[in-house]
Amino acid sequence: MIFRIILILILFGHTVVLSQKNTFKVNQDRLEKRIFDLAQFGMQENGETERVAFSDADIAARDWVVKTMKDMNMEVQIDFAGNIIGRRSGTDSSKKPISFGSHIDRVPNGGNYDGCVGSMAALEVIHTLNENNMETAHPLEVIIFPNEEGGVMGSRAMSGNLGKAAFKVVNSTGYSMGEGIMRIGGDTTKIAEVVRNKDSMAAFLELHIEQGGILEKEKLNVGIVEGIVGLKWWDVVFTGFSNHAGTTPMNARQDALLAASKFIVVVNEVTNSFEGSQVGTVGRIKAEPGAPNVIPGKVVTSLEIRDLSSEIIEKVYQAIKAEAEKIAEESNVKIEFNALDTTAEPALTHPKIQKEIEAVSKELGLSFKYMPSGAGHDAQDMARVAPTGMIFVPSKGGISHSPKEFTSAKDMANGANVLLNTIIALEQKLD
Amino acid sequence: MIFRIILILILFGHTVVLSQKNTFKVNQDRLEKRIFDLAQFGMQENGETERVAFSDADIAARDWVVKTMKDMNMEVQIDFAGNIIGRRSGTDSSKKPISFGSHIDRVPNGGNYDGCVGSMAALEVIHTLNENNMETAHPLEVIIFPNEEGGVMGSRAMSGNLGKAAFKVVNSTGYSMGEGIMRIGGDTTKIAEVVRNKDSMAAFLELHIEQGGILEKEKLNVGIVEGIVGLKWWDVVFTGFSNHAGTTPMNARQDALLAASKFIVVVNEVTNSFEGSQVGTVGRIKAEPGAPNVIPGKVVTSLEIRDLSSEIIEKVYQAIKAEAEKIAEESNVKIEFNALDTTAEPALTHPKIQKEIEAVSKELGLSFKYMPSGAGHDAQDMARVAPTGMIFVPSKGGISHSPKEFTSAKDMANGANVLLNTIIALEQKLD
Repeated sequence: MIFRIILILILFGHTVVLSQKNTFKVNQDRLEKRIFDLAQFGMQENGETERVAFSDADIAARDWVVKTMKDMNMEVQIDFAGNIIGRRSGTDSSKKPISFGSHIDRVPNGGNYDGCVGSMAALEVIHTLNENNMETAHPLEVIIFPNEEGGVMGSRAMSGNLGKAAFKVVNSTGYSMGEGIMRIGGDTTKIAEVVRNKDSMAAFLELHIEQGGILEKEKLNVGIVEGIVGLKWWDVVFTGFSNHAGTTPMNARQDALLAASKFIVVVNEVTNSFEGSQVGTVGRIKAEPGAPNVIPGKVVTSLEIRDLSSEIIEKVYQAIKAEAEKIAEESNVKIEFNALDTTAEPALTHPKIQKEIEAVSKELGLSFKYMPSGAGHDAQDMARVAPTGMIFVPSKGGISHSPKEFTSAKDMANGANVLLNTIIALEQKLD
Repeated sequence: MIFRIILILILFGHTVVLSQKNTFKVNQDRLEKRIFDLAQFGMQENGETERVAFSDADIAARDWVVKTMKDMNMEVQIDFAGNIIGRRSGTDSSKKPISFGSHIDRVPNGGNYDGCVGSMAALEVIHTLNENNMETAHPLEVIIFPNEEGGVMGSRAMSGNLGKAAFKVVNSTGYSMGEGIMRIGGDTTKIAEVVRNKDSMAAFLELHIEQGGILEKEKLNVGIVEGIVGLKWWDVVFTGFSNHAGTTPMNARQDALLAASKFIVVVNEVTNSFEGSQVGTVGRIKAEPGAPNVIPGKVVTSLEIRDLSSEIIEKVYQAIKAEAEKIAEESNVKIEFNALDTTAEPALTHPKIQKEIEAVSKELGLSFKYMPSGAGHDAQDMARVAPTGMIFVPSKGGISHSPKEFTSAKDMANGANVLLNTIIALEQKLD
């Protein structure tokens, strides 16, 4: 190993060795080119790309990924869930693989960076290792997870959490998840064989764009993800009394929309009253009967609370509920909370891997901060089966799930360099 | 006339004369029976009645009204707008008619009293006069206005405010208003001939259920309507920025729904801060994109303000707007008010007729209060062409436009007695 590092240092040249000891660099231009090559799959006349999971464009892009992996001498397998797994052998057959990757499917009207940056960076890591003739003791696995946007399908299958009910869910292509799995080379009847045993991997790493505006705002290069926040959803039902807006005096009303409005203000106030980065959101509202001249008798809103700690989620919820009970009493409107079955438990990343990402960032001269991931990712399910780490790079303006999504080539390369060097560091330290 | 009154006093008997001088009484049981007879038209298996304008049930009920009028020796005409006009001749051919009536069409899933009480009371007034052989100098006109619930169609035509655009409006029967007018015996090509000249009637009176809970709550028999409130409608558009609810920190949000909620609270507070009986209502709300995990970037709500004074409506609006501007600035959300073309000007009833209704109520020993009508009525348009009066009777629980609507037979009879005696009083006083 020492011989190999010396060889690399010679190849990289004197100045690199002096300025940034023991770090290796990906090819930024090549990485950026692959992002644009990938964006060709599904490109529309307006220059924007549509590539929802199971679409023809998705399948074409997947074929291109498989070909690119094979061109890099990787051994490629599509598992029964449709995960593309490219394997680069290690020198020690007793070692568990170090795995890394992301996804290339997109939301409708999405952008070129979400998932794609982590996927192309993973390929670039292999490319860089190959061209430098670097071997690793652990086998390396690049995983491109299918249908992340439709419910982290591939990673859920690997963690054993993809139930058969999910197969019926249809996405915007018109295909159900079950049909989609068959289309991309999987097999729903053998989905159980996809499950990875806990600790069957030495580590899992995912690089992703932040999808928020924090790194850009604070002028930082890298986010070290502490975990993917958990979330809980409720339907909140306000029952007042629907009546004629002209004939019902103000003091005789049981206005469900007025009560719901006070509730929405309270959700904001209570969430802000806690220290920390928890978020509380009301995104959906329906008022019945919904006419300008009728006092709404029934309103249903959503309530979502996210945090890295399930305990904080519960505390925020209880505080909101207590305030809601006061509103109900003052407004003569009944308020009910119905918990929905969409709870996601917080998934913490591994402290040792966090520390390794921090050390590598420092070595690379990159600024960083520890932060939660507010969005769900494949790393969330992978954290159930492997020690997991996650690296964020800045998103311009915090814009996500939009054609306006943007991450600069420099930022992508920074992230890929952190990924590469973290893998090299872990490779030396992990069993 | 004096002879006739003496005759009636003899017919009514001694005790009536002593207790309530110069007043006449309708037959309460007969009035109540006609309410139930009318409810048969459109009755469903569940015992509730459906009779939307232009439906077969509406046409059958109209035919029954025409037959009832003819049985009372009235001269019946259907005008080109479909108004049923039953005329009882007066003794002085130079006198203008005293007109009164209401409507028998109903909203979908409506009740048995809205419109029907005023219509059946109008028939009962004629029946009572007939059976007592009372003549009047003025001709009397009972008007049953068609399609009140679909936009006071008949009365609007009489006041010259039914534009051709309205003919395209389709109601829940599937018929357009134009088709509906032809179905009920009108003629859209001759609609202009329906218009009554200003002051072509000596007076117009309408009895109606209150549709609010004020009379019942205050244990009063009669409402003397000061006028039908005017109303203005706005669409209020809140433009923030739609973003991921997980990745956007609380302090970086431009949440259009949060701003709209603060606005709805302010509409209530500002409306209540004015003295008087004005009402301000937000009945409709739409948040986009409308998902629990996305911060709403756009919200559109309705705003309706009603009052007897256009000036108060404007004052309340300006005060709401000023508060909305503060919310916009604090929330980093743009707020726009778009005035809609549904403005209705307040329509005041005639002070002399109000006073007459008051005097008659006192003579009948009925408690009363002056009050605005928060709902629109045919009297609103009739006030443009005639000195108009309007009488309210209590609605149980203030429930309206519902099968649960209820007004007792006693309350209906009280109202009909006020109507009858106001007509007799006006008949003696008006030119």
